[in-house]
Amino acid sequence: MRVDVVTIFPEYLAPLDLSLIGRARAAGILDVAVHDLRTWTSDVHRTVDDTPYGGGPGMVMRPEPWGEALDAVASPDGSPGSEPPHLVVPSPAGVPFTQPLAHALAGESRLIFACGRYEGIDQRVLDYAAERMPVTEVSLGDYVLFGGEVAVLVILEAVVRLLPGVLGNADSLVEESHADGLLEAPVYTKPAQWRDLPVPEVLRSGDHGKIARWRRDQSLLRTAGRRPDLLPALPPQALDKRDRATLEGAGFQIRYPDVAE
Amino acid sequence: MRVDVVTIFPEYLAPLDLSLIGRARAAGILDVAVHDLRTWTSDVHRTVDDTPYGGGPGMVMRPEPWGEALDAVASPDGSPGSEPPHLVVPSPAGVPFTQPLAHALAGESRLIFACGRYEGIDQRVLDYAAERMPVTEVSLGDYVLFGGEVAVLVILEAVVRLLPGVLGNADSLVEESHADGLLEAPVYTKPAQWRDLPVPEVLRSGDHGKIARWRRDQSLLRTAGRRPDLLPALPPQALDKRDRATLEGAGFQIRYPDVAE
Repeated sequence: MRVDVVTIFPEYLAPLDLSLIGRARAAGILDVAVHDLRTWTSDVHRTVDDTPYGGGPGMVMRPEPWGEALDAVASPDGSPGSEPPHLVVPSPAGVPFTQPLAHALAGESRLIFACGRYEGIDQRVLDYAAERMPVTEVSLGDYVLFGGEVAVLVILEAVVRLLPGVLGNADSLVEESHADGLLEAPVYTKPAQWRDLPVPEVLRSGDHGKIARWRRDQSLLRTAGRRPDLLPALPPQALDKRDRATLEGAGFQIRYPDVAE
Repeated sequence: MRVDVVTIFPEYLAPLDLSLIGRARAAGILDVAVHDLRTWTSDVHRTVDDTPYGGGPGMVMRPEPWGEALDAVASPDGSPGSEPPHLVVPSPAGVPFTQPLAHALAGESRLIFACGRYEGIDQRVLDYAAERMPVTEVSLGDYVLFGGEVAVLVILEAVVRLLPGVLGNADSLVEESHADGLLEAPVYTKPAQWRDLPVPEVLRSGDHGKIARWRRDQSLLRTAGRRPDLLPALPPQALDKRDRATLEGAGFQIRYPDVAE
């Protein structure tokens, strides 16, 4: 996968040299280039922003440097025949970033990230790009950041770990375990006794049926307590009689799908 | 605000030197220390993980180095009288990170971030800490990352921009504009004509009423198209007759609260 990032803070993307992303780059699975937007300014002050039309607070990123940057980055070798890249623009007004979207982006051969700052990028930049390539505005969540750079780090971590060859088999299973729509149960490792706290007896019992049931109960209770929004989203067959008894026994009044018993 | 981050990838936190976070640190508003968890290992291999009790894939972070790290970082000067810090643990099993949670964390004088990797940190570390300080497991969103480091960058950006003295007045207003529960309208700046695309006429009209109405309509249509989950969450008085006409005129079949007219 080829990834280009355009930003006014290229140094912010330094973590892309580290950890599993750095290893994927070293292994040739991933090719990342970070570009300074100010390369495509033409004035002596290298201006990238101006006041918004229609009034209001803050500054808006001007279309000219963005237009030239995307022209250059989208066709690095000037060859018009190649598949267009997918432009990803982190924005609080975007669609929510989710694991299915990470899978979709992991299927692309080329991604371009445009990092907005201030009030955002002039809308015409996105409109112009959208006639030439797929464009997706993406929001990490309902919170306010300084700019798109840290969102690129998050999105790339989620995408790169899905690329073939990046994770070992054991790690791949981790993701599968999220597929049941519940939060993970707590985890424990050695030593069996730490300070005044033992590992729960059941996990040391060797009884795989009991362990699976304990983990399922812990997942249900955590999900009901921390993410009650997830339970009603489960398919009707997802919670059996025993699951419902666990939730009711803990006093959770959850709207969950009805199940034939 | 004092912030301590414990991680096995201290270099990943380098972006905390940059941009507005770097400036807040230079101005003395924020004091950040990043600690290598392996400092608190005692074996020659500096081991931080082991296999999970009860079986399953992946590795779990052992409790001993985490316990010693949190002991040391929570009481840097050994003074028992000071207010305990708030421990934040990024985890896919956490409560969702939201702007209200960012505000809550911005009100703390001390934060500690514990960055898990692999399958997570032995649960007893969190249980032990919870008897001594507030502990919150936080999830950025429903996607899978390599570890907690990038989540710390996100959470700190959202928190630090709320600290007094970090943002100018104009920027502060930006946040207020999110308070209406809708996505922002598109933004435009000079030049009025760029390539084949003009700035929308209404934004150059100088008619403040029309501009406000246009922006409101754009916000409604964007929200309906990209975040239909937000509309039913609005209070009943949030959408007036004109707002509903905008949505219906665009063909959106939205469940929105009923309004007396």
